[in-house]
Amino acid sequence: MNLKKVLISACFIVWIAFVQGQSIQRAEPLHWWVGMHNPELQIVLYGSDIGDCEVKLPKAGMQLKKVHQVENTNYLFLDVEILNNAQAGTYPIELYKNGKKALTCEYILKNRDKDLVKAQGVNAADLIYLIMPDRFANGDPSNDSVKGLRETAVNRDSMYYRHGGDLQGIINNLDYLEDLGVTALWMTPVLTNDMPQASYHGYANTENYEIDPRFGTVDTYRELGKELHKRNMKLVHDVVPNHVGLYHWTVIDRPSSDWLHEWDTFTQTTYKDQTMFDPYGTKADKDLMEKGWFVETMPDLNHQNEKMQKYITQSHIWWIEEAGVDGFRIDTYPYNDLAFMGQWTDAIRAEFPNFSFFGETWVHSVPNQAYFLGGQKVGQDVDTKLEGVTDFQLTYAIGDALNFEKDGANKLYSTLSGDYLYPNPLANVIFLDNHDKDRFFSTVGEDIEKYKSAFSWLLTYRGIPQMYYGAEILMKNFSRPDGLVRDDFKGGFPGDKVNKFIAKGRTEAENDMFNHVRTLAQYRKQTAALQDGKLLHYAPQNDVYVYFRYNDNEKVMVVMNCSAEQQEVTLARFDEGIGQSGQMKNILTGESLDLPKSIIVKGKQTLVFELK
Amino acid sequence: MNLKKVLISACFIVWIAFVQGQSIQRAEPLHWWVGMHNPELQIVLYGSDIGDCEVKLPKAGMQLKKVHQVENTNYLFLDVEILNNAQAGTYPIELYKNGKKALTCEYILKNRDKDLVKAQGVNAADLIYLIMPDRFANGDPSNDSVKGLRETAVNRDSMYYRHGGDLQGIINNLDYLEDLGVTALWMTPVLTNDMPQASYHGYANTENYEIDPRFGTVDTYRELGKELHKRNMKLVHDVVPNHVGLYHWTVIDRPSSDWLHEWDTFTQTTYKDQTMFDPYGTKADKDLMEKGWFVETMPDLNHQNEKMQKYITQSHIWWIEEAGVDGFRIDTYPYNDLAFMGQWTDAIRAEFPNFSFFGETWVHSVPNQAYFLGGQKVGQDVDTKLEGVTDFQLTYAIGDALNFEKDGANKLYSTLSGDYLYPNPLANVIFLDNHDKDRFFSTVGEDIEKYKSAFSWLLTYRGIPQMYYGAEILMKNFSRPDGLVRDDFKGGFPGDKVNKFIAKGRTEAENDMFNHVRTLAQYRKQTAALQDGKLLHYAPQNDVYVYFRYNDNEKVMVVMNCSAEQQEVTLARFDEGIGQSGQMKNILTGESLDLPKSIIVKGKQTLVFELK
Repeated sequence: MNLKKVLISACFIVWIAFVQGQSIQRAEPLHWWVGMHNPELQIVLYGSDIGDCEVKLPKAGMQLKKVHQVENTNYLFLDVEILNNAQAGTYPIELYKNGKKALTCEYILKNRDKDLVKAQGVNAADLIYLIMPDRFANGDPSNDSVKGLRETAVNRDSMYYRHGGDLQGIINNLDYLEDLGVTALWMTPVLTNDMPQASYHGYANTENYEIDPRFGTVDTYRELGKELHKRNMKLVHDVVPNHVGLYHWTVIDRPSSDWLHEWDTFTQTTYKDQTMFDPYGTKADKDLMEKGWFVETMPDLNHQNEKMQKYITQSHIWWIEEAGVDGFRIDTYPYNDLAFMGQWTDAIRAEFPNFSFFGETWVHSVPNQAYFLGGQKVGQDVDTKLEGVTDFQLTYAIGDALNFEKDGANKLYSTLSGDYLYPNPLANVIFLDNHDKDRFFSTVGEDIEKYKSAFSWLLTYRGIPQMYYGAEILMKNFSRPDGLVRDDFKGGFPGDKVNKFIAKGRTEAENDMFNHVRTLAQYRKQTAALQDGKLLHYAPQNDVYVYFRYNDNEKVMVVMNCSAEQQEVTLARFDEGIGQSGQMKNILTGESLDLPKSIIVKGKQTLVFELK
Repeated sequence: MNLKKVLISACFIVWIAFVQGQSIQRAEPLHWWVGMHNPELQIVLYGSDIGDCEVKLPKAGMQLKKVHQVENTNYLFLDVEILNNAQAGTYPIELYKNGKKALTCEYILKNRDKDLVKAQGVNAADLIYLIMPDRFANGDPSNDSVKGLRETAVNRDSMYYRHGGDLQGIINNLDYLEDLGVTALWMTPVLTNDMPQASYHGYANTENYEIDPRFGTVDTYRELGKELHKRNMKLVHDVVPNHVGLYHWTVIDRPSSDWLHEWDTFTQTTYKDQTMFDPYGTKADKDLMEKGWFVETMPDLNHQNEKMQKYITQSHIWWIEEAGVDGFRIDTYPYNDLAFMGQWTDAIRAEFPNFSFFGETWVHSVPNQAYFLGGQKVGQDVDTKLEGVTDFQLTYAIGDALNFEKDGANKLYSTLSGDYLYPNPLANVIFLDNHDKDRFFSTVGEDIEKYKSAFSWLLTYRGIPQMYYGAEILMKNFSRPDGLVRDDFKGGFPGDKVNKFIAKGRTEAENDMFNHVRTLAQYRKQTAALQDGKLLHYAPQNDVYVYFRYNDNEKVMVVMNCSAEQQEVTLARFDEGIGQSGQMKNILTGESLDLPKSIIVKGKQTLVFELK
């Protein structure tokens, strides 16, 4: 498979003036559309020594507004306007040197695909399933190793090499996810990550308009979107506005010295999110946080550079329109320029009003997390416009709730009361674990009752639940030192001896857990009260935490015993939550009964009841 | 000394109609003033069977607006208006039964004492010294035990009995406090606390208009205020709007069944401050928190009762006007009705615009603490109007900073970055310990270097510093199990073998610590940058935390080494803080030097430099 095919097919370059030594190797965005909300576009032209060329756009419909030269003479940045009456087709971009036409690039404007489902937004009605595509299923062994890329080794015995998983593998298993009750798929980044090592994780992209050929193509990705949408599932695209890979083409040959945040010597971010909102912080500390590089192989993009801003924003809009993306997960959110993030969000929403965003905020307190949300009323000199965050505070709290010897329930209860600081708590993504964290099953010492409790919580609490691939089949391990939390989903790879995608391939315990998750996820799918319903909770007593999710028609009561002892819980105290209900149905067992005076809940058990 | 003398002297009761069985035992407020901002007053009359009397106020100047009867016929609540032209003097309140005058109470309106300094407000320019008056100094042994009170025993060998300390003892030692650099005195409550046990702590008052006779009289209290003001020191009065003692006269004979928050059986508050701001909380949990009793001997006042609201508010205004109080410390702040607290604050500020308030918020996170502040922009359906809180979060942080084996500095740095949630962080009271907490010297394992660091921090950080009596002379111990943190200040009591109020009575180590505190406190007093100056701090590196306090004219740099190892700290990193300064003076040693490239700071040491 040829890495450059896609690029070349998009930009037909006519060598009129070979003798002058110029060529156009790239024009990005790869193509654009007529009929977008924003008529303006900035096209990056890249070619040997084109910087002093005069530019003409001879075809009506796409008008040249301004040509930006930069330090590097291999670049030109063209501001164009796509007029209202523009038709889809090819639009020549002509480059003249000394009055003579030297090069032409046939830029393509397409019609928007009205039939492609896109930009639906992900919300609290969803259940997000997070997959590392290299580790889930290998649907196309022919693309496991791609010549011309810097990393070609495939080695399933190591967590740091590629394993061969791909988009086709995921497509092949969408029925499994649908059956489980998943309604949205988030994959770690799928763009080309042409790095020499550990390229599988995807967070160091080297191309902005290309699916990593080891995962598939733009067409496979669009196909995945369509297959998801066919099943009423959504596609979450993981974007990394903060950095790219060291081998990104614009890093190998920087347009200008202010394209990246450059330092005299390698300078790592301090990972101090506090600098972004600290009323007493120094510019030096904020710069170190925001402009320091995430790691040595991931250059930090200069969000203060307007050309960079457009480059990022356009590439993100491109994927929504091109592939039918429904929402973004935004990597390393606090490390970005927050004023730019606000503008970026506005630009995307102007095109796709229902599009949704959640940012990764791996921080350590509610104020630290709350600050990054849009519409925040305190302490903000910028409005990030961010809808939701990855709610790490609740992740810590559910861990404490189930693992503390006593008073764990209070951690959950107390953390949630801090919701008064969030403009819209329902937009926060709640989760037990992810690709960077210990598998939750391991953190609870592989205690099935605790683990079931965790899922009962995840699928009934406020926010958008997100689960990590394989959690439902008891995949385990710690993230350090060996990265085994990114292990393969057994059955997804040629030669696998067992197939966990089917019931008979799973052990009894795995099926039990799978069914637990499935029962709750499917129940959640049909129960609006668990989606955007209100929440009412009681201060824990004896380490038992009771909360209700409800709307005008439905009511669910959750009783979580965080203590190790079996307890009898008298219901009289919960009259505000129970109201007039006289019947309860145990969602996990299916049993119905008249509302008793008290219920028995085993140690570390969580019961979920529908009340009528 | 006669407990009832003050009351009787204020309300001359004329028994005109003994035969009918009525009498007036009390009228509160004890007296009032002409020329207050608010012309309205509610007078509580208490007497045997007066409930159905007709009331007349025959003398012009004080007009009867309304008479409120309540369930208990021993009470009448009179709404009166004090007219603009009212003169100071006695105003008869006449009670008629069956058309016949039965009783007269001569109510007194005084002229306001324009010469009495009062209501100055306490702010970040101050250093507050907290004293338990029973435990500091005994200036009048004649009042150690007062006949007629429920607790008469004096026993200095037990932490739970009275020790005999009093207001005169404090007056006698104000020069000591002035010399130390203290500018404001906060005593635990000084009102009569006629409880049978542990009455010394004062948080269960039984009278609202009387100084506990074991502490002194209203005159002694006013004298204390004057002696403070003479020394440019301020008087902080500890108010307890949430509860009173079980033997409060209005509790012994309740005016009505809604005077207190009554429960069928004793119901304790849950101490869950979260219920006050929890967006998902139940009314039941909020009621338990706010209306449950703090402890069995402290009935919870019903702030939803308008007569109670007036009773509390007037009594607090009374002490400001009567004794020259400058600010309130508000006990158990989160347990109060917050809407009422807002009105209460408004009413006091209407009389005394510069008066200041800080509330005790013994809670466990920045959001929990921030919620209770006035002007909070998120999550509030009420505005408490509260200026400042006792900043427990920083107390926890300074403890962690000095006691954690590593990364302690980060706790301090991170906690402070949450200041973005506070409308005015400078109004928060910062402290190492108080009467309820372990003595800080003990929590740092009696490590002098750590303890000095703590004071260097306390006297240079943002907010209003508060220290606890005896901290400067290395008083130690833990609050549990024996309450020794409320031990006597040696030298304050007759027969004490040593006198820590004078240098020669202190050990070398005690003098060393005393001088450390004194040097910094006196320096702070003359250095505006340490009072309301701005703060700039750097993310800690190698567990060294560096911050600056500055204004246009002054600059102080603090270098706190939270690690156990000596470190060399290169100054180049701190150029935003250092600016053009070329000289530094070590405030603790007095040494001056040209700004070096680096400084040496010992393990757990904190250096304070003035920069020029």
